[in-house]
Amino acid sequence: MQNKDLWKKRQQKVYSYLNEEGVDMAILEDKEDRREPSIRYLSGMPGDALLFLTSRGESVLVPWDINLAEDIAWADKIIPYSEFRRDFVSAVKEINEEKGATSIEVFSTIPYTLFQKLSSSLPLLKFICSENGIDKVFSGYRICKDEMEISLYRKISEITNSLIGKLETELQNGNLTREIDVALFLERGALDMNSEGMGFETIVAGPKRSFGIHAFPAYTGASITQKGFTIIDFGVKLEGYSSDVTTTIVRGPLSPIQETMCSVVEKAYNTAAELLEPGIPVSDVAGKVDLLFAENGFSMPHSLGHGIGLKVHEQPVLKQGTEAILEAGMIITLEPGLYDKTAGGIRLENDFLITANGSERLTNSRIIRIPDKL
Amino acid sequence: MQNKDLWKKRQQKVYSYLNEEGVDMAILEDKEDRREPSIRYLSGMPGDALLFLTSRGESVLVPWDINLAEDIAWADKIIPYSEFRRDFVSAVKEINEEKGATSIEVFSTIPYTLFQKLSSSLPLLKFICSENGIDKVFSGYRICKDEMEISLYRKISEITNSLIGKLETELQNGNLTREIDVALFLERGALDMNSEGMGFETIVAGPKRSFGIHAFPAYTGASITQKGFTIIDFGVKLEGYSSDVTTTIVRGPLSPIQETMCSVVEKAYNTAAELLEPGIPVSDVAGKVDLLFAENGFSMPHSLGHGIGLKVHEQPVLKQGTEAILEAGMIITLEPGLYDKTAGGIRLENDFLITANGSERLTNSRIIRIPDKL
Repeated sequence: MQNKDLWKKRQQKVYSYLNEEGVDMAILEDKEDRREPSIRYLSGMPGDALLFLTSRGESVLVPWDINLAEDIAWADKIIPYSEFRRDFVSAVKEINEEKGATSIEVFSTIPYTLFQKLSSSLPLLKFICSENGIDKVFSGYRICKDEMEISLYRKISEITNSLIGKLETELQNGNLTREIDVALFLERGALDMNSEGMGFETIVAGPKRSFGIHAFPAYTGASITQKGFTIIDFGVKLEGYSSDVTTTIVRGPLSPIQETMCSVVEKAYNTAAELLEPGIPVSDVAGKVDLLFAENGFSMPHSLGHGIGLKVHEQPVLKQGTEAILEAGMIITLEPGLYDKTAGGIRLENDFLITANGSERLTNSRIIRIPDKL
Repeated sequence: MQNKDLWKKRQQKVYSYLNEEGVDMAILEDKEDRREPSIRYLSGMPGDALLFLTSRGESVLVPWDINLAEDIAWADKIIPYSEFRRDFVSAVKEINEEKGATSIEVFSTIPYTLFQKLSSSLPLLKFICSENGIDKVFSGYRICKDEMEISLYRKISEITNSLIGKLETELQNGNLTREIDVALFLERGALDMNSEGMGFETIVAGPKRSFGIHAFPAYTGASITQKGFTIIDFGVKLEGYSSDVTTTIVRGPLSPIQETMCSVVEKAYNTAAELLEPGIPVSDVAGKVDLLFAENGFSMPHSLGHGIGLKVHEQPVLKQGTEAILEAGMIITLEPGLYDKTAGGIRLENDFLITANGSERLTNSRIIRIPDKL
């Protein structure tokens, strides 16, 4: 993926956008507390950088780590941030002295105070910032994956599936008995298969903690051998892209409510999976699942799924009210789940590629049933 | 640490601040892409929540996960975010219908677009947002640690030191040969000692990658057994607080420049450590180290150190130009380092508590020299 032609082609899209909108320059920023994956998408730089793109078709990357940028990223010009004393306003001012833009659109997440400082320091320039601004438009480019991304996701899914298989074997053999053992088993396995490790902090929540949607802390030294539900939510990362799957270990004998939760979640998952095809509004898919849960007396406290990519949570969000329509090339998760303070939580999540005619399940996570000990 | 009296006492400080400033209400937000540790500091809620504090001395916590909040956090009132349809503006509007504030200060990192939406949706209220606003003031409260925090840091340091000792043993015995082995050894060790795991993603950069300040990716399957420098940067987390230490494995025979880098970094570290005492401007400490590096023909591409706490990088930043003065109760790191694309990188980092009369080194990281193989 590290190739100049790809970044060039993607940057080209931005230039067209700027010309259509009549904006001279766009600015993106990625930093520790405010990640902006479009910089990686457009230039290959994985983090801590500014990216300037002009309507005349020029790109300037301003990285914190110049060695890394020169090694793996591409832009027409790469200037270390230290040349601007790592000051955002100075970088904008000095770069624009050469570019001569008069209207400049900044990323929608820019802090209020930084926007004010920029506007007052450079009063002759027109700065634009809107909620559905450039970074949203650019993250929109990321929703439908190109061929290279899809082939990357096949590799990621292969590693993910291999891990799920190994995990099930270890669990069935009784070799992983604590939350931490599962988390480290997955991490070591992912790295041993030459991935970049986990896409996000693995969640392993045993029967006493699985009622939380996102257990805190993500995993502990607690045992997972009691009867009930253990949620395991993880992703494998490669070239910045991550899978996102959840399996639940089910150890019986279950209570009647646990049995019901289990079958309703699987039913919800299957219902949603069958609906995935181009042209279907994501809101409809989410609505059908919400209805199914309601008919069974349950309610799901989170959305049904989401896009994945350079961020674990990408557009579209699969919930009622979202306007997005499924399109070929999207890669999304389905993750129906139910949570009960006493019964625990159960969730099943897999990643799906929307194809020309329907969908293809990329990952093969499943509910892992451990036979009852008598 | 999970006790109501502590949160109450800390919230009290905010109430005094609001009264001094003549502001009716303050709002903080913590969410996935924009972490705000002051919410945990003030209420015990570890993440994903809004916190409202009024000058009349009332607190309202609005968490995503109500089960978690009721379990471990405290505020006068806890209302699930879902009651406001997880919409920031609705939460502000509805909570303020009861509170009746007319001037409301929001966190300094609020996005420009959200601030505009808030102001236009609630035009009768005066919203305040400044670069050195409430969140900066509240993070200022966090700089000097209280007794409970200091005793927590003693526990964290004990685990960290034990890990450093075990790591050195394994390395000297030749048992850890790849970057990933070191990273997982540390994580497993930290969790086995009942910490919450790592405070941040462990960096293990072998001789071929240690020239990067923050190697990307953080660790790989690459070998660390070649001669040269391997940087290992990690932290142990407990109750949200993290240590931050760096050791460099030095495997000879070294080149003359590597020998020099090694001795200059150790000298810089010792010079800085001897200067730590209350009343000393952090800028002076950083200046002395910069001068020492310059005299030896080197330059350090990052700051000398930083505060630690609920964030890994807290105030003060130890660099020239920072106005902070060392005070008893501060816990800071010193992390001088030098990086060369050919020779590799070397860094040494420990955590120090500033005491009434000087300083106390909490962690005992050191350069780990592996005897030359002949």
